[in-house]
Amino acid sequence: MKPFIDDNFILPNESAQILYHEHAKHMPIYDYHCHLSPKEIAENKSFKNITEIWLYGDHYKWRAMRSLGIPEELISGNGEDYDKFKSWAKAVPHTIGNPLYHWTHLELKRYFDTDLLLSEKTADEIWEHTNELLQSPQFSTKKIIENSNVKVICTTDDPTDDLQYHHAIKDDKQFQTKVLPTFRPDKAVELTRPDFNDYIEKLSSVTEIEISSYEHLLAAIDNRAHYFHEAGCRLSDHGIQTLPYEPCTFEEAANIFLKARQGLTVTEQEEMKYKTYTLLFLGRLYASLGWTMQLHIGAIRNNNERMFAKLGPDTGFDSIHDFSLARQLNGFLNELDKTNELPKMIIYTLNPIHNYVIATACGNFQSGAGKGKIQFGSGWWFVDQKEGMLQQMTDLANLGLLSTFVGMLTDSRSFLSYTRHEYFRRVLCQLVGGWVEKGEAPADYELLGSMIKDICYNNANSYFQIK
Amino acid sequence: MKPFIDDNFILPNESAQILYHEHAKHMPIYDYHCHLSPKEIAENKSFKNITEIWLYGDHYKWRAMRSLGIPEELISGNGEDYDKFKSWAKAVPHTIGNPLYHWTHLELKRYFDTDLLLSEKTADEIWEHTNELLQSPQFSTKKIIENSNVKVICTTDDPTDDLQYHHAIKDDKQFQTKVLPTFRPDKAVELTRPDFNDYIEKLSSVTEIEISSYEHLLAAIDNRAHYFHEAGCRLSDHGIQTLPYEPCTFEEAANIFLKARQGLTVTEQEEMKYKTYTLLFLGRLYASLGWTMQLHIGAIRNNNERMFAKLGPDTGFDSIHDFSLARQLNGFLNELDKTNELPKMIIYTLNPIHNYVIATACGNFQSGAGKGKIQFGSGWWFVDQKEGMLQQMTDLANLGLLSTFVGMLTDSRSFLSYTRHEYFRRVLCQLVGGWVEKGEAPADYELLGSMIKDICYNNANSYFQIK
Amino acid sequence: MKPFIDDNFILPNESAQILYHEHAKHMPIYDYHCHLSPKEIAENKSFKNITEIWLYGDHYKWRAMRSLGIPEELISGNGEDYDKFKSWAKAVPHTIGNPLYHWTHLELKRYFDTDLLLSEKTADEIWEHTNELLQSPQFSTKKIIENSNVKVICTTDDPTDDLQYHHAIKDDKQFQTKVLPTFRPDKAVELTRPDFNDYIEKLSSVTEIEISSYEHLLAAIDNRAHYFHEAGCRLSDHGIQTLPYEPCTFEEAANIFLKARQGLTVTEQEEMKYKTYTLLFLGRLYASLGWTMQLHIGAIRNNNERMFAKLGPDTGFDSIHDFSLARQLNGFLNELDKTNELPKMIIYTLNPIHNYVIATACGNFQSGAGKGKIQFGSGWWFVDQKEGMLQQMTDLANLGLLSTFVGMLTDSRSFLSYTRHEYFRRVLCQLVGGWVEKGEAPADYELLGSMIKDICYNNANSYFQIK
Repeated sequence: MKPFIDDNFILPNESAQILYHEHAKHMPIYDYHCHLSPKEIAENKSFKNITEIWLYGDHYKWRAMRSLGIPEELISGNGEDYDKFKSWAKAVPHTIGNPLYHWTHLELKRYFDTDLLLSEKTADEIWEHTNELLQSPQFSTKKIIENSNVKVICTTDDPTDDLQYHHAIKDDKQFQTKVLPTFRPDKAVELTRPDFNDYIEKLSSVTEIEISSYEHLLAAIDNRAHYFHEAGCRLSDHGIQTLPYEPCTFEEAANIFLKARQGLTVTEQEEMKYKTYTLLFLGRLYASLGWTMQLHIGAIRNNNERMFAKLGPDTGFDSIHDFSLARQLNGFLNELDKTNELPKMIIYTLNPIHNYVIATACGNFQSGAGKGKIQFGSGWWFVDQKEGMLQQMTDLANLGLLSTFVGMLTDSRSFLSYTRHEYFRRVLCQLVGGWVEKGEAPADYELLGSMIKDICYNNANSYFQIK
Repeated sequence: MKPFIDDNFILPNESAQILYHEHAKHMPIYDYHCHLSPKEIAENKSFKNITEIWLYGDHYKWRAMRSLGIPEELISGNGEDYDKFKSWAKAVPHTIGNPLYHWTHLELKRYFDTDLLLSEKTADEIWEHTNELLQSPQFSTKKIIENSNVKVICTTDDPTDDLQYHHAIKDDKQFQTKVLPTFRPDKAVELTRPDFNDYIEKLSSVTEIEISSYEHLLAAIDNRAHYFHEAGCRLSDHGIQTLPYEPCTFEEAANIFLKARQGLTVTEQEEMKYKTYTLLFLGRLYASLGWTMQLHIGAIRNNNERMFAKLGPDTGFDSIHDFSLARQLNGFLNELDKTNELPKMIIYTLNPIHNYVIATACGNFQSGAGKGKIQFGSGWWFVDQKEGMLQQMTDLANLGLLSTFVGMLTDSRSFLSYTRHEYFRRVLCQLVGGWVEKGEAPADYELLGSMIKDICYNNANSYFQIK
Repeated sequence: MKPFIDDNFILPNESAQILYHEHAKHMPIYDYHCHLSPKEIAENKSFKNITEIWLYGDHYKWRAMRSLGIPEELISGNGEDYDKFKSWAKAVPHTIGNPLYHWTHLELKRYFDTDLLLSEKTADEIWEHTNELLQSPQFSTKKIIENSNVKVICTTDDPTDDLQYHHAIKDDKQFQTKVLPTFRPDKAVELTRPDFNDYIEKLSSVTEIEISSYEHLLAAIDNRAHYFHEAGCRLSDHGIQTLPYEPCTFEEAANIFLKARQGLTVTEQEEMKYKTYTLLFLGRLYASLGWTMQLHIGAIRNNNERMFAKLGPDTGFDSIHDFSLARQLNGFLNELDKTNELPKMIIYTLNPIHNYVIATACGNFQSGAGKGKIQFGSGWWFVDQKEGMLQQMTDLANLGLLSTFVGMLTDSRSFLSYTRHEYFRRVLCQLVGGWVEKGEAPADYELLGSMIKDICYNNANSYFQIK
């Protein structure tokens, strides 16, 4: 029996251990997609206590606490920080089997150097121990990042953002980690949302382009993309409920845009057409800039109206969608490819039933342009757990080439999430080491170790071409 | 190599064995969903031979026999009981790999105390041995139930049922097991079935409410729900092909109901609207009564018209459906939740491609009302096998909290099916024990054993609030 | 740690090893579905070098090479054979984890008796070694087939084919392997393809039936089916994007056919109706001939227009489709079954999300006619890898009877693919041997070995009734 989270956590055999300890462990981190606050980095923020860094805004933990019947006051509400932490501590033993149990203890171990298991009994000791450490300068955001060996961070940013914090971070010559923006123009794409017109006004004002037509909108987007490019941005990101692919002319898109601007009702088909045209425009723009386009497909959001009215978005009421994807995905990629305007692309799914469709669609659009141009993205959000990651990597290996994979990202709002990279690397080494143990891959650790290092860091470093 | 079905069957390591033998094994059974006949319990029926208790009406075995080309006469037809048993005996060795092979031998072992493997060669010996035992008073329905350590049984009943057998069972003070009805109003929901109008007449007659409008129908349903409540009913159940969610007003539903009453054609969209309104009405009714609503989603039934004409429903010609579920499921739950009328709910799927959608949708509607209010139900019917159960529990663990799970039910028509609980518990201990062995959970058997006991019995006992 | 591809490759324990070495290994091969060229068999072709036999037309290898950014010239283009081989050799170490890595080395080992691992370093040695051997008479197509212990090969043929090569092969009395045609009338079913009318002309000319109406088309098809039957054909095959099932009368189908003949636009619904009627007609025809109908469901093809324009079909730009299948599949099978005109059928899916739907739909239509009349087909194309095969067999075992399975086929264009049968057999023995080791099946090697032999060869031999 293996002890809980020892040095060989998730490394069940010697091959996995060699690959992890001799190859994966020391590679730097390339966190090409996350939701960290650039402001909190620029200001080198410190945290008053473990509740602030752990429980403010962590909807994973919130969902677990709600499942246990803990009152909302002690979750997202006005409860005291100590009481909220205590509630979480009581909840933790009931999360066994969920990745939260691993993440929690891995973070306690790596950042706070304690092997204590969190529960009601140990809550006070851990509260005091972590809070004491959090006062040290080593726990400011920049120090956590540096100590985690992070070379690159790509945050997620709205096109209207002035990127002042990114500029400020760049100006701090002491701080070596690159922190770059990612262009996420969802609000310009989602034309049926209530805030669409407000957003267009904001975009008008930021770009000083009066957006009275769709043509102007595209010009404004182009303008902001170049502004982001200047600031070092090399990735875009799109949160997509169901990938649209309804062929649409410029004129059609322009008319639908005007309808939305006038507050008229846009039909579902019109919405799909507008989104298709706009996303294709964006894809071509990214191709021209040498960017990577990320598609995060398959969340169904804000399902609980009662709680949405109280807490707003991103508070733990999103879940996994299901729909047919193959026709749309291949159609979308083909439309860009046929004029040689297909950018590098990473396609993530929140629903593993899409794994086979995505992994094989990627293969239809690889080209001589480089290694793994079209990527099947890492297990994401609900899929970011051991089984989900193993499945994504096994499917990628069977249907594409694992060796070309750009690997892990944190996708996190928390500064303590770099252990997700450790977790991923252990899972990766379990998978590849398992092949060796079973005689399904040669015991050539130089070859396999080099593949592991590529997936941990080198592939991303070559792929994104961030300078 | 482990011997076939020894004490540590499905328990591959020490942790699994400790958890099963010291924690799971002795817990009583809470069989909150089955299809046992209350009449056969009330009358304390005995069985003339192994064919009657095993092969009459067991469509799992029938399907296996048909796959082997055995003539229907020896399956569901007029063949002699001995010949039917002999046919099944010949079939058994060809079922290796199917859960039938395990169920068959587990039942032989636990109920008839024999290690013989059933085949043509052993058929006669087993025929005589089991038939002899079946004559003993220990093999009456009540004795089997008591000897299986069953505390609660919830049968599945039509709203028009007078529940006389439930009353009779309650009156037998010697019999300690609670046998309660479950309210399953499918026939009032399925308005396009040929027997809909006959059913409404029957409901009219039972309730003495002249059902001349939809309002009367709802009143009649309400009337029967309260009648069931008086008899101790605390659960409802719904067999649902594809979950409907088409917003619908009372007036629309009322008009659609009248069309169906007049024998007019109801469109598919009207059917979905009627069902949506009616199911939401029922959900609110259950919430007001403190009941649990069970949704069994995803069977496609009576696919073989030729055999349906001969044998009728539930004879082995149903299979697994596929469709998108996320939008409807979240919409349905939200509609009830937004007015605080969401009952406790258990959502089962017959198609594991829905696991991720359901497990995460549940998390959108958990609330401070108690532990695991919205449950992702156990692997059901075709999914009630080792891989199916492991997958359902792994997915629940990764996406929700396994510790809150109300666990297993037999869903069976047979009095020898309590071994399904044993089977489930062994699978559960394999899963959790595996985590310990791999260092993915701490070797704290008190903590884990308590979780196991909760899932085996205590969670159900608290959740259903049956007195 | 097991050495890479040793004698016990994919056989992780003693039970698996016993089952493979004592039961599976020596069974002959019954390759009931492949895409070998009958011409190349009839002419007993030899290969000038390893590039010709390995890389000409192997779209699996092409896709892998494209993923690595290798220029198309060295893949499908005008590059020299040596340079293409060298490119592939460089690519191979990067395919670890993909079945290509196993297939490549298994073929090198079994056909060229070398344990060298292919890479840039060993490329020249392997180039020379294999090319030398390929000059030997043992490497002609007929010799490869005989040395691979192949008893039956069913190729895939268009109804207009004159089957001259099949006749020539039959006439070679020295060559013992049966090589029979398979009837694949896709071009008569796909009425919206640009070449539909040309095809109808060709069919007219071959049958000497002037096809001026749908009735004539059906007569022409019937004519060719009987021609194939005379040549020993006992299987048909259909490549189906999404299984159509839209009830359609003869008159409707006839009118839609005429529209297509006149070059008028056929709507999507008309296309589905025409296909439904035509496939049902074909199913009844096959039933009357005692044939097996194969449905290969779920490829989405020619997704990359740019490359399609350059290279045409079957060049590595097909992938996996997703859609709901249960209603159509059950409806289609029922329509044939209800008049007792359901032929033996093998249903393959390219998307494992359909496994549960198919495996249980098969069970709705088994009948007393024989063992496993309706078959859930082996993992196919992208699913033809260890995990895919294990999943297909596990699902079949859980939801049907593994013992009735007709097993593996190569589905290949290459004469070196018989190692796929070895691979499949090892996976099968791993699965069944694993049950024994875990105590989930009795250690009765006679019983299990007999099941293994049935799946390897005997079931297919009885099922297809090829004389």
